[in-house]
Amino acid sequence: MIEILQKKIDTKTKPLGALGRLEELALKIGTIQNTLEPKLVNPTILVFAGDHGLTEEGVSLYPREVTFQMVMNFLNGGAAINVFCRQHDIRLKVVDAGVDHDFADHPGLIHAKIGRGTQNIMNRPAMSADECNKAIETGRSLTEKEYDQGCNIIGFGEMGIGNTSSASLIMHSLTRIPIRDCVGKGTGHDEEGLKKKIGILEALAKKHKPSDAIDILATYGGFEIAMMCGSMLAAREKGMILLIDGFIATSAFLVAIEIDPKIMDNSIFCHISDEKGHRSMLQHIGADALLDMGMRLGEGTGAAIAYPLIKSSINFLNEMASFQEAGVTDKD
Amino acid sequence: MIEILQKKIDTKTKPLGALGRLEELALKIGTIQNTLEPKLVNPTILVFAGDHGLTEEGVSLYPREVTFQMVMNFLNGGAAINVFCRQHDIRLKVVDAGVDHDFADHPGLIHAKIGRGTQNIMNRPAMSADECNKAIETGRSLTEKEYDQGCNIIGFGEMGIGNTSSASLIMHSLTRIPIRDCVGKGTGHDEEGLKKKIGILEALAKKHKPSDAIDILATYGGFEIAMMCGSMLAAREKGMILLIDGFIATSAFLVAIEIDPKIMDNSIFCHISDEKGHRSMLQHIGADALLDMGMRLGEGTGAAIAYPLIKSSINFLNEMASFQEAGVTDKD
Repeated sequence: MIEILQKKIDTKTKPLGALGRLEELALKIGTIQNTLEPKLVNPTILVFAGDHGLTEEGVSLYPREVTFQMVMNFLNGGAAINVFCRQHDIRLKVVDAGVDHDFADHPGLIHAKIGRGTQNIMNRPAMSADECNKAIETGRSLTEKEYDQGCNIIGFGEMGIGNTSSASLIMHSLTRIPIRDCVGKGTGHDEEGLKKKIGILEALAKKHKPSDAIDILATYGGFEIAMMCGSMLAAREKGMILLIDGFIATSAFLVAIEIDPKIMDNSIFCHISDEKGHRSMLQHIGADALLDMGMRLGEGTGAAIAYPLIKSSINFLNEMASFQEAGVTDKD
Repeated sequence: MIEILQKKIDTKTKPLGALGRLEELALKIGTIQNTLEPKLVNPTILVFAGDHGLTEEGVSLYPREVTFQMVMNFLNGGAAINVFCRQHDIRLKVVDAGVDHDFADHPGLIHAKIGRGTQNIMNRPAMSADECNKAIETGRSLTEKEYDQGCNIIGFGEMGIGNTSSASLIMHSLTRIPIRDCVGKGTGHDEEGLKKKIGILEALAKKHKPSDAIDILATYGGFEIAMMCGSMLAAREKGMILLIDGFIATSAFLVAIEIDPKIMDNSIFCHISDEKGHRSMLQHIGADALLDMGMRLGEGTGAAIAYPLIKSSINFLNEMASFQEAGVTDKD
């Protein structure tokens, strides 16, 4: 399939390779879908939200209740991810993976609460092994539901005050990159706040001794990160296209790739976050992101704004004329 | 206006600066339009096509007739720029600035032929001063026509076998960057072809002694480049947003900025072309492009695929809730 896809790309009315990364994307998506005429059906972004016990230690500039307030903002359509999903006709669903708030029913909200926030990892692992497995399995079933409704391209976003700390610890544990290079300013620490955050995370990295990728996920947690990880694994199993967003989403991906290395084949890395560790994360797995817009918002916003580029790649493959069709002379 | 725009951006439900370059774009566009609620109306890309006398010397891998064949491809909707303009509801118009072919009337084609290709600059300047002025004035009037129809954001694309040579010579003359760093593989030269091209252009850079920016434009030409330059100048005069594409379009911009340095204020640099000199060109004028997709196709394709990012910037400004509206606690 790769060879005939490449041939189709090469006969389009343009110099060889002149569409650069759009050609790589077209080749990748055609290969995933095993067709010369790939389609993107029901593009969907799941935004997983959860609270973090570690916020008690002041690792974030924003108070914990901002997690549920932002979930309400998503449900009311006022957040950045709403704006970008509307712009690109991407379906958006918000998942309560473990927010410390009781939500009323809402058509855009999926109730999947594992707990009311994780444990404070200063004292104990963020979640039990059971909770972690439950989060992963729930994530899987959410993706499967989207797949059953025809979705073949899915993005993963998140909201959780304190979750850059979890992501940094997961990154450090899986990559052995020093904590100070895994920690960024999160939602906006100054130098002093950053120093304090690094100190706390260095202590935590010494305190716990998780045994493998799943244990790392359970220890440093984030119900939303664990659920996202399960959701990614199922997307690969179903042969979907995965849109990987920024720092937190990629930390979930780091766990997923330990479990299923072939997940790379189905994944598109949408942007490089401005959050410090993200570039090293991407380098670690050999991923090359599409966009570098200096963004560090999460919510899946990087995936959403990269979507039209991905659509452009299959549009040129499906719609452009070949040299022969257009009667254009090819080079010798 | 800048201060109140920045304040509007900063009160949106996101950490300060978390939308990165989208925030810069929102600020820029709001400033250009002098409003807190900017709009993009009738986005349009003009693709200017012209032939080049220098193709007689074998500077391009493709024969000269590919220029008119590609114009036909544009008119039939089969080229990359058609695909991307359709995707993003961008109006596309093709301008015969000087193709060596007689085109029949077509609703998508603007007849504005200055001549049937430029002179071979091995022998004499590409065009006379009169032809150059006529091309610039025609470009101006084409933009004004779009403006009169409500368009407030305009991109500039081009098609012209041999025009990377013109662009390289214009770049060299205006920036004094050595020819070898201004010359790339164009539509696909190998190392030997590239060496030959550099040799020819180095000889040409010594042969002619143009006196100023307009004379440089006339000497090294490209009817399509001169017309694009005029079109850019009028867009700035009308207060429109200019979408600057790749290597050739930026060579026209290099001339335009000599005439009107304030044109920078209205211009968005859409992508870095894979054509070698483009990065240095952008550095020379202090421009920071949005996308780096390894593309080198021309036609305005970089401007077209960057358009949704630009739209995202004003969408978040217009549609996102503020902390107060959403009832989200801001940081202290």
